[in-house]
Amino acid sequence: MNLQAVFNIAEICAQHGVKEVILSPGSRCAPLTLAFARHPAIQVRTISDERAAAFIGLGMALTTRQPVVLVCTSGTAALNYSPAVAEAFYQQVPLLVFTADRPAEWIDQLDGQTIRQENIYGAHIKRSFSFPVDTQHPDANWFAQRLLSEAILETKAYPPGPVQVNVPLREPFYPKPGETLEYNQEVKVIQEWSNAYELTNTQRAPLEEELTTFTKILVVAGQHYPDPVCQVPLQYFTRNTGAVVVADIISNQHNLPEVIRYHDVFLNGNATKKASELQPDLLITLGLSNISKNLKLFLRAFPAHEHWHLQAAGEVADPFQSLTRVIRCTPQSFFSLIPNGKEANTKTYQAEWLEQEKTASNYLQEFLGQNNFNEFIAFARILENLPNNSVVHLANSMAVRYANIISLRPEQNITVFANRGTSGIDGCTSTTVGSALSTNLITTLITGDLAFFYDRNGLWHNYLPLNLRIILLNNHAGGIFRLIDGPRQQQELAEFFETKQVLDARLTAQEFNLKYYPCENLQQLAENLNIFWKNGPGILEIFTQSEKNADFFQLYRQHSPFKSK
Amino acid sequence: MNLQAVFNIAEICAQHGVKEVILSPGSRCAPLTLAFARHPAIQVRTISDERAAAFIGLGMALTTRQPVVLVCTSGTAALNYSPAVAEAFYQQVPLLVFTADRPAEWIDQLDGQTIRQENIYGAHIKRSFSFPVDTQHPDANWFAQRLLSEAILETKAYPPGPVQVNVPLREPFYPKPGETLEYNQEVKVIQEWSNAYELTNTQRAPLEEELTTFTKILVVAGQHYPDPVCQVPLQYFTRNTGAVVVADIISNQHNLPEVIRYHDVFLNGNATKKASELQPDLLITLGLSNISKNLKLFLRAFPAHEHWHLQAAGEVADPFQSLTRVIRCTPQSFFSLIPNGKEANTKTYQAEWLEQEKTASNYLQEFLGQNNFNEFIAFARILENLPNNSVVHLANSMAVRYANIISLRPEQNITVFANRGTSGIDGCTSTTVGSALSTNLITTLITGDLAFFYDRNGLWHNYLPLNLRIILLNNHAGGIFRLIDGPRQQQELAEFFETKQVLDARLTAQEFNLKYYPCENLQQLAENLNIFWKNGPGILEIFTQSEKNADFFQLYRQHSPFKSK
Repeated sequence: MNLQAVFNIAEICAQHGVKEVILSPGSRCAPLTLAFARHPAIQVRTISDERAAAFIGLGMALTTRQPVVLVCTSGTAALNYSPAVAEAFYQQVPLLVFTADRPAEWIDQLDGQTIRQENIYGAHIKRSFSFPVDTQHPDANWFAQRLLSEAILETKAYPPGPVQVNVPLREPFYPKPGETLEYNQEVKVIQEWSNAYELTNTQRAPLEEELTTFTKILVVAGQHYPDPVCQVPLQYFTRNTGAVVVADIISNQHNLPEVIRYHDVFLNGNATKKASELQPDLLITLGLSNISKNLKLFLRAFPAHEHWHLQAAGEVADPFQSLTRVIRCTPQSFFSLIPNGKEANTKTYQAEWLEQEKTASNYLQEFLGQNNFNEFIAFARILENLPNNSVVHLANSMAVRYANIISLRPEQNITVFANRGTSGIDGCTSTTVGSALSTNLITTLITGDLAFFYDRNGLWHNYLPLNLRIILLNNHAGGIFRLIDGPRQQQELAEFFETKQVLDARLTAQEFNLKYYPCENLQQLAENLNIFWKNGPGILEIFTQSEKNADFFQLYRQHSPFKSK
Repeated sequence: MNLQAVFNIAEICAQHGVKEVILSPGSRCAPLTLAFARHPAIQVRTISDERAAAFIGLGMALTTRQPVVLVCTSGTAALNYSPAVAEAFYQQVPLLVFTADRPAEWIDQLDGQTIRQENIYGAHIKRSFSFPVDTQHPDANWFAQRLLSEAILETKAYPPGPVQVNVPLREPFYPKPGETLEYNQEVKVIQEWSNAYELTNTQRAPLEEELTTFTKILVVAGQHYPDPVCQVPLQYFTRNTGAVVVADIISNQHNLPEVIRYHDVFLNGNATKKASELQPDLLITLGLSNISKNLKLFLRAFPAHEHWHLQAAGEVADPFQSLTRVIRCTPQSFFSLIPNGKEANTKTYQAEWLEQEKTASNYLQEFLGQNNFNEFIAFARILENLPNNSVVHLANSMAVRYANIISLRPEQNITVFANRGTSGIDGCTSTTVGSALSTNLITTLITGDLAFFYDRNGLWHNYLPLNLRIILLNNHAGGIFRLIDGPRQQQELAEFFETKQVLDARLTAQEFNLKYYPCENLQQLAENLNIFWKNGPGILEIFTQSEKNADFFQLYRQHSPFKSK
């Protein structure tokens, strides 16, 4: 192996603007380790558990919206990245994954840490490259350098995502005594000026004309990063057209005052009440997944006549089974259309939704204002008290659901992340840690006990972020199963669905130097919430009982003014 | 979905002799959960972290040498299995992996926990099946049942390994109120009488003739389960031919008195001393990987004239770059050949190896007899004190290396396991737990701190085996990097290779109800080793310093009578 070729990898990454590398140490990846660790423009952090490492890298890339580099050694290290790689693929997060490998001739020869790494992420990677094992020939050198630009650009090309570069390495892995390796500034770098994905004038006119033919326009925003560029055009669009905007908490549209945020409450269960008034003529969707199952069921049962999906490029989903048109542009380009609104009709449509919203909001406020200690109420207190202008990560599976029911106030200006690409519990803590390392804002994870202990290794490293706060709702089980009709009625509920687990976070807090705030009643919760965010990194643990949580959630459904008859 | 078809899965597995299921709970896999949990002949255990779950299943299958079933829900759960699946693939362990999935029409539609699961294990699975989503048609029902037999038989067909069955499931996942599902005894089951892989008489005669033409026959046993059937023929073969048997500790041939076990000591570094006397005419290999790098380097530098590898079926590796013939038979069939030995010459060859063995043994005994507290010496004390007739798991990476240098005495009758298919640190604890659950013998894991904390979730469940003992050599880092010439000399050693970690196991022991025995000197170690195995499940933690361990290992190399000049 030519070590210089590996040092060029780091230089090309740096020239493309890569700043952060998450490394999981190993022998085979040593040349990559040295190349990145010695580069002055790049910060390398080492995380031993590759599963956690990859999610930490994902959290950084989520937050900075720039590609983050992962480096691992050969063998199952690369497989431990795969949950985060799949999450990055579906959540469209740019990750550049370097997997060190043995050269082809040593694969399947019973050497240690040697598996079949080419294209190891299968269908969950944008593209997989094989770095050349010999780079002496000028063509091979050109290939090696060109390949790097192609890989980095591919992570960012819309929709962004993960890309693998498998790097077979022959010994020696280290410079000879006295040998110095330098970063060659003259490496080949290919830049890309990306498509702006704007509607052209010839596309705009007929769309503006067509929009005037709809009186009930519903905009549904799926998971999206906070996008201030889109918010002003969207506000004008809703005023011009009378469109209603429904925003799940992970859409990060909750900072717009006019959006519908309690749809999961009032589309509860049946959706037949008022359904004909709420049913859209035109459904416009953007972003990725939605949390609200009630919303999905409503839109499938009462489908829009037309359903347009705004997506600049890439494969398109049809989650409401109503898709009729894909429009290849950015949301802000679409929402800057100026149709002639039909005010009389459209205001009626908005009014119908706002009436439901108001009733739902009142019900929630009253119901969650009770003095009853359980997860749902604790969640309401937590969300109320979140520091303004902070970042929140919502773990799967109940945390993100509770938060989506309760929602946030616009003036809180909170950015919400959740691993809803694949909805796994496997990396929620690590993702938050990576995110916290990439911002100065207070970064709070709200999680359950299964997700927390599953990914405890997200805290097992030497980079505890001072802005990290963890709120752990511990019911000693996968409480979600007690809330669902099917498993709740099976004799196997406790052992084979909920899976009782005995841990609490006290010793984990002690191990990782986190302040610890246990809460067993509403008063403790109130007192702790008062100081928790002001102190350093900590874990606030709320102990509730799975059975009581389930009973209270049943009451929420039973008392709902929107419940099915 | 037809729930009866899923109940048939459990019944067919049971009729094929499957007894153990490791389940990681989820919603999508609920029908599989119920089908296995309710089956009277099958024991189901629930493990929340799928990475640990799969390694626990692997440990069970390793120990029982019968297929173990894994069941997970849809999404990244399946990807968390992938490190253990790769280990099972390379270590040839039968695992039957059921991955619950959504039906094809809901893939990539932004639903939660939905990824592309077909053939998700890529090149590291023997075969992947897609269970039919509809089984109403008689042909589909025949297919669903036939497929299960094919899958189970494939896990066991030589060489055994992992097989995936992806099971797309439509709601409802649960029986209707009042609906009872029964196990249909009349399911279709296909049995297989496997090939005995014996040499025929027409093959035996020429081989016996040919064997007489070699005077220096070396048998090298790679990783293998304990195989008493082979030991008697092998002993006769060595007497008849004067062959020398070299056995790494993971070959489980250390229970044979005549084997060479200190080869890693005397083939130290150069192998030129005596090399021409030790160089074989004929190398016969069996089993999988070898630990000893010195052995590999010797056999590559001084290759045999002929190298025959005994392997009944499957792809063959050439780890010593000398392979000339693959013989498709079992080792016991080959070693039951009776060539006419050439006693005079061959005894000389054995004598050469035994002379080295004796010198190495004396050196080791003297060197490790010192009163010096470090990992290497601690390891010698541990191995000396292991209970007879017990099971040992050696974690990657240093534990298995130290143990291979020191070796075990035949009269200890110890079975040795190690995840050397892929040599990962990601599942050593979980594998041991699974193994301990499958035997009544005392089962000891010897591990380092990185491997131990990496896989801490191997202990996060409700099935602590009473026969489990863990010995943790904690040097607060990946100490192996300080023992290797390359990284030891880099300024990045401490941060980017060793990766200092601060944890010890005291709180982990407390969390999981394990007795805890800290050792900081030789006397504590001796005292604790005296009681550790007699008490219940526990962690014996030995604190050493990475720098001192490295210095002592250097001394071992420097003082070696075999060291390179």
